This record gives sequence, structure tokens and C-alpha cells, in this order.
Amino acid sequence: MTTPAQNRATARGVPEPPRPLAALDRSHLHSSLSDPLLGSVEFLNEVMRRYPDAISFAPGAPHPDTYADLDVERFMHRFLEHAGAEWGHTPSGARRLLYEYGPSRGLVNGLVADLLRRDRQVHASPEAVVITVGAQEAMLLVLRALIRCDDDLLAVADPCYVGMTGTARLLGVGVVPVAEKEHGPDLEALRAACRAARRSGRRIRAFYVAPDFSNPGGNHMDLAHRRELLELAEAEDFLVVEDSVYGFTAAENEELPCLKAMDRGCRVVHLGTFAKVCFPGARVGYVVADQKVRCEGARTTLLADELARLKTMVTVNTSPLSQAVVAGMLLEHGGSLAAVCRARSGLYRRNLAHLLDELDGLRDQGLSRDVKWNRPAGGFFVRMRLPIRVDDELLALSAAQYGVLWTPMAAFHLGSGGDCVLRLSCSYLDAEDITAGVARLGAFLRGEVGA
Amino acid sequence: MTTPAQNRATARGVPEPPRPLAALDRSHLHSSLSDPLLGSVEFLNEVMRRYPDAISFAPGAPHPDTYADLDVERFMHRFLEHAGAEWGHTPSGARRLLYEYGPSRGLVNGLVADLLRRDRQVHASPEAVVITVGAQEAMLLVLRALIRCDDDLLAVADPCYVGMTGTARLLGVGVVPVAEKEHGPDLEALRAACRAARRSGRRIRAFYVAPDFSNPGGNHMDLAHRRELLELAEAEDFLVVEDSVYGFTAAENEELPCLKAMDRGCRVVHLGTFAKVCFPGARVGYVVADQKVRCEGARTTLLADELARLKTMVTVNTSPLSQAVVAGMLLEHGGSLAAVCRARSGLYRRNLAHLLDELDGLRDQGLSRDVKWNRPAGGFFVRMRLPIRVDDELLALSAAQYGVLWTPMAAFHLGSGGDCVLRLSCSYLDAEDITAGVARLGAFLRGEVGA
Repeated sequence: MTTPAQNRATARGVPEPPRPLAALDRSHLHSSLSDPLLGSVEFLNEVMRRYPDAISFAPGAPHPDTYADLDVERFMHRFLEHAGAEWGHTPSGARRLLYEYGPSRGLVNGLVADLLRRDRQVHASPEAVVITVGAQEAMLLVLRALIRCDDDLLAVADPCYVGMTGTARLLGVGVVPVAEKEHGPDLEALRAACRAARRSGRRIRAFYVAPDFSNPGGNHMDLAHRRELLELAEAEDFLVVEDSVYGFTAAENEELPCLKAMDRGCRVVHLGTFAKVCFPGARVGYVVADQKVRCEGARTTLLADELARLKTMVTVNTSPLSQAVVAGMLLEHGGSLAAVCRARSGLYRRNLAHLLDELDGLRDQGLSRDVKWNRPAGGFFVRMRLPIRVDDELLALSAAQYGVLWTPMAAFHLGSGGDCVLRLSCSYLDAEDITAGVARLGAFLRGEVGA
Repeated sequence: MTTPAQNRATARGVPEPPRPLAALDRSHLHSSLSDPLLGSVEFLNEVMRRYPDAISFAPGAPHPDTYADLDVERFMHRFLEHAGAEWGHTPSGARRLLYEYGPSRGLVNGLVADLLRRDRQVHASPEAVVITVGAQEAMLLVLRALIRCDDDLLAVADPCYVGMTGTARLLGVGVVPVAEKEHGPDLEALRAACRAARRSGRRIRAFYVAPDFSNPGGNHMDLAHRRELLELAEAEDFLVVEDSVYGFTAAENEELPCLKAMDRGCRVVHLGTFAKVCFPGARVGYVVADQKVRCEGARTTLLADELARLKTMVTVNTSPLSQAVVAGMLLEHGGSLAAVCRARSGLYRRNLAHLLDELDGLRDQGLSRDVKWNRPAGGFFVRMRLPIRVDDELLALSAAQYGVLWTPMAAFHLGSGGDCVLRLSCSYLDAEDITAGVARLGAFLRGEVGA
């Protein structure tokens, strides 16, 4: 191997003194890169790589069985047919939709608006929808649009999805945690936070919450909390950023309307994704933002227009190829994913019930009452509280000695409360893995927690 | 139609006084949304919608003929074969790569690293590559990583691609313009800017430049400027962010090595995209960032690792489906796009030559010497200077009265210099459109400029 100085010497034909290569210091890079949040997600990935044979309750990925009914070529052709029959494109014109840039706000907004009306009772015009690169990009766009300066704050239900807190870090947005309880966020605390902010010349601009089986809390906001949250949003003048990712996992008779479906005051910005119901690899999500925006003169736009403008500076547009595949899947199912959601939901609730059964089995075998867990009715996750500190060190031990992985909850918590909690995900595991994984977890708890 | 208040009344069974819908004020949203930059891009789109029959020299989109040799299904299958034969996946395992999330840094980094070595003489390990949602996301990630605080500045070759200045606005990054001349940026001005920044306790952290036929300047940095820029980067301790988007349009005998290929001091972060050579709809770009980053303890990472970490907070990962299609296209061409680039480049240089010929024809017909244009040897764009102010109003007039569209250059300029200049793009037009468009442009110049 030659050194860079030798390379230079060779290139120019004369020897030169060696110069140091450029090296950077992480502390001189943006602060979000030094955030413990990112560090703990990475540590988890690192542990998963190091112990490939461990049974992992860590990733919240869809179950591989849900990929069995995917046929991206057929979906793409279904979309091309639609573009021909309904939008009047020639076959080559329809193909060109896949190849060209396409509008920043998206290509299949009408189909998504139809879907939301049919499946979620969300009535939004296609113009109020922006198609995004997963729900993650939607979070970034919404946060960037709404937060004008350091005096604007984002409140979040705590514990909070790391994608949202991470985006806030990346944009340097101040975050105010509001504790989430089993039936919804502590609305009195949220009201108090709004008032405290106002007293100090700041304002809570938006409140981020996943009302249906949040990641990682697993909580399900009841109807009273939903109504009260919308009233509080009007009273205290903030927007609600609703993350609807896990709504489809509710049992059919336990589904509650999403906040956007109840939103008479136009206070809710609704985020969603096709990652969990269709497939993550498409990277197609969406945001519904039908709030009016007053501009210079008498002109108004929608918040969706503003988000689409910001998107030109982030990803330009969402891959039309990906949009076409997802749209084709919608069309194959008659413009509704209700049946697909029911099938997926059945699988995930069976997994969840099985995980809870196996955990109950540990209890029957004498597991201490000091180890507690919640019993969510949907979603991908169970929270477990231990009588000891849960950190990366304990995770490494669990992987190395007991062959079982889980996620420490501390990274999800902005306030206190997560230090002794771990998250168990069962979405992508098979029943036998869950059984074997819980047996290993039992050994870990007996061995390390003395439980 | 019912009012929201009536809806509420119906929902709860009791009448309620009407309440106003939430409406936002753009001046209360993030300042990037009020930036004239975005406004002028939008105005152009609006004019294009309003005058669909106008001949447009505005968009820098690839020519539709380049889509004729695309076959996304075949490319996808080619990738799946590769994943089976080379990576050892079963057929269903290979399929799952398309459906699952996949790594944040990308799935096809090795193939892209091979391509860069073969086609651009850029020697980077797959670990130094991050696959992004177009070059646009790469710009956002690089800028976010490198700019730590308000004291860190980005210098840019001026005029500058709006995607980069737009991202800087979105992140609130201070931008220092450095005039670009025909043979490269004014390096003495860049040196002076570095020193001025340092004297005021700030620093120029990076310099963004497209050395090959920049958008919109169309300039081509000569070899001496390339060498001097790299030396200046070492002397003044900044990184060079190289945008290589239009490099492929050089004539075969006029190609210069990209900055990254000359980068002995590891000073260059190299951005690219498959949008112009393969197709924009894939939304696949990349960044090469092989700079070492020192972390806590003795640990080091690469800047690419840091960019991949940031990406988890922006788009999580680039659609594996899109990556597979682009990778399949690379594989179909033996891992090199050199032949595809040559074919594309031929088309674009023919268009450019034809545009310049037609403009010369206007001159022969008596067009005033007060109207001047450059003669780039590659790229998609010609700059034309008029003896009058070039603004949105003039554009609207050109569209309405003469049926021809172009892009005012003011939005591309951070310093002065663009007020009387327009940009003509000829990339996606056919020869007859160029001929007819220049005839209309001639009528516009005679009628409005008196030229």
C-alpha cells in the first residue's frame, strides 16, 4: 500500500513531504451526531451483528410472512393500467411517470386520499396530501415547517418514537416531554406546559402523539382523551401531529377513530406509512395537512403545499417507482387496505397474545412480581419493568450469556422513567421463536435479576 | 355542506357556537418557506402549468429518449440474480431484500464503489459510500453533519444550484458566495473569505462546487483550478463538497478527473446521482465521504458512517426497490455506465450544439450584441445576458406573448450578477423544439428587449 504522500509524489514525479489526511472530530460535527439517542440505536445494531444466533425481541419490523402476497411487478402493471384507463396516458406515457421526477407532493395522492376516506374516515382532498419517503420524512417536513425559531417548541408524548426526537435533534428543535399514561397523554401536564412556555415568551407549537399502540409505549388513547386533546389544541392553540403507524393492529371491535377523523377544528396533521401494511422497502409514507396558510397578499395555501415546497430541499420527490408499486397494491385491493390490515393485524395480535402467554408462563414458574409488563391490545411492543437498571451493558450481557436481545427503553424517554424498562417486540418472530426467546429471557431474569 | 361547528354539534348531539378553523400564517412558519428562492421556483412551475403550449427552455430534465432503453422489471431480476449468485441469497431471500428496510447506508454500495472506480477513477471502499434519495438528500446530510453551529459557514460557487442553497436555508446555515468564472471559482476570493471568517471567529467549513458544467453556470473548472482548489482546502482547512451530476456530459477527449479522483489529502466529499444517466424516478444518489472521524475514546468512524446515522432521522434508508433497479442496470452494463454515459452525452451535446447554432442564427439575423451568451462544452444549460432586467414579470410576458419559457437566473445568485441573465436548458427538447423555441425567443428579444 502506498501512502497518500507517495501517491502525490508518483502523480507529479517529484517527492514531497507527507501531509496529514483530513480528519474530523465528532465533537466538531453537528451535535445530533453526539446524541446518546443515536448511540443507543447503533449499539443495538452492533449487538445484533455480533450475536447473529441470539433471538431478538428488538426490531419492530414487519413479519416476513406478510411479504408472501407481494408481487411488485404485478402491482406496477396494475398502476400502469390505471394510469392508462383513468388518467388517459398512453402506455409509454404511463411508463414515463415511473421514470421522470414527478411532482414534489406526489403522484398517487388521489388514491391515498381515497384510501384514507374509505379506511380511516379521514376526509382530505388529494391537495392536502403529500407523499413522503416513509413517515420519517413527513416528521422532518412537518417539524421544519412548524418550528420557526428557538421560541417554538415541540411537545411529545413521552416515551416517544426515536424517529421524532431524532428529527428534532437534527433540526435543533426544543422538545417538551408530556408523560403518556395507559389511556392517553397527561393532558393537564400538556396544558401546564403550554402555559409555562407562554409565560416565558415561547410557545408549544405542536404536540406529537401516536394514539394507537405507540412505539414504544404501546398505549391506546381512549375516546375521552382524544376529544379532550382536540379541545385542548384549540384552547391552547397548538397543532396535533398524529402518527397513525400502528392503528391497523387494533382488534376490529376495538378500533377508535383516529384524531384526524375527529378533527373539526383542523388542528390535526396526520402522518402515516405503507411500511407496516404493504412493505418497508417501498419507503412510501404520507402526511395529511389541510390547514390553511395565509401568505402575502390575500393568497392562501394549504400546509401540505408548504410541506411539498420544503420537500424539494430534502428529497425533491418520492420515487414514482415506489409510489406506483404501492398504488398498484391499493388498486389490486379495490382502493382499500382494510382486508390486508385485518390479515396483518390478526398475525400481529396472535404474536402479541403468544408473547404475553409465554410471559405469564414465566410468572407461573415463579418469576418475581418485581418484574412487570403491560398488556397492550395491539401494536408491536410490550414494555417490561425490571427491579434493576436496564442499560447497554445489561443488553450486552443478555446477548452474550443468554442469547436473547431486547431494546433498553432509556433512549425513548425524554423525562425520567425508562431507566429500568426494556421493550420486547414480537412483530417479526414466529411462535416457536417467541417461545424459545421467552425461555431465554426467563433464564436471563433468573440469572441476572435474581427474579 | 355542513360547517365544522355543525359537524361537532351532530357528533355530540348538542348545538355549539362556531369556532374558527385553525389557520396558520406563513410568516409564523420556518423562514425558508418565505425565501424568494422557493418563490421563484414555484412561479416558474406555475407559469409552465398556465402555458402548457409554450416551448420551455426551463426544466433540466433528462431527454425522454433516454427512457427507451429502460426495463425496470429486467433490471430488478438482474439484481435478484446477482443477490443469489454473488451474495448467496435464496430466491425468496433475495426478494426480501427489496421488501425489508435494509441498512441506512444502502444496499448496493459495493456496486456503486466499483462503478466509481471504473468510471471516475474514484477509489473508495463500499464503507465510504452512502446511498441517498437523490443527490438532494446527500446535500442535506453533508451540510447537517459538517455545520455544527452558527459560526460554521458554507462557501459556494456563485451562481449556485438552488438545491444546495435551499438546503442551507432549511438548516439555517450561513452561506458565503464565491464568484465562479469560466475556468473555475475565484480562489483568491475563497481564500480571502476563509481568512475573513477566521478573523471574525467563524470558519468556512466546506466549499460546494460542481466542477463540470455546473447548473446553472455551465462552467468547467480547468485542471490548474482543480489542483489549486485542493491545495487551498488543505491550506485553509476546509472540505470540498463536489457535485458531479453533469460530469458525464463532457466530450470524451475533454474529460477532466473529478476532484475526488485527485484528492490526496482526503479533502473532497463527492456527491452524485443516477437521475441524469439512469432515470430520475429511481431517486437514487450517493455520497462518497471517506474522511476519518475521531470519536470518544480511541474509536474512529468514517464521515460516511456519520452521514448514515443522520439519514436514519431523514428517510431511514433509500428504497431498496429503487436501489435494486439501478443496481440491475449497472450489472446489465457490466458494472460500468461509461457506454450509457457516452450515448447520453452525445445526445445532450448535439442538443447544446443545436441550441448554440440557432442562437448564432439569431445573431446573423441582426440580434444586438447587447444580448450575450456563453458557449459551454457540456451540461444542460446556456446562460444568456440581456440588456434589461430579467425577472418573473418578464418571464410571464415571454410565456403569454411569445410562447417561450426560460429560467430567470436571479434565484441562483447569492451575490449580484444574475439580475439580467436567463438560463436556457435544452436537455429534454428535440431538435425541432429547439429550432421553434429559439425562433420564439428571437421574437421575444426583438419585441421586448428591442434587440
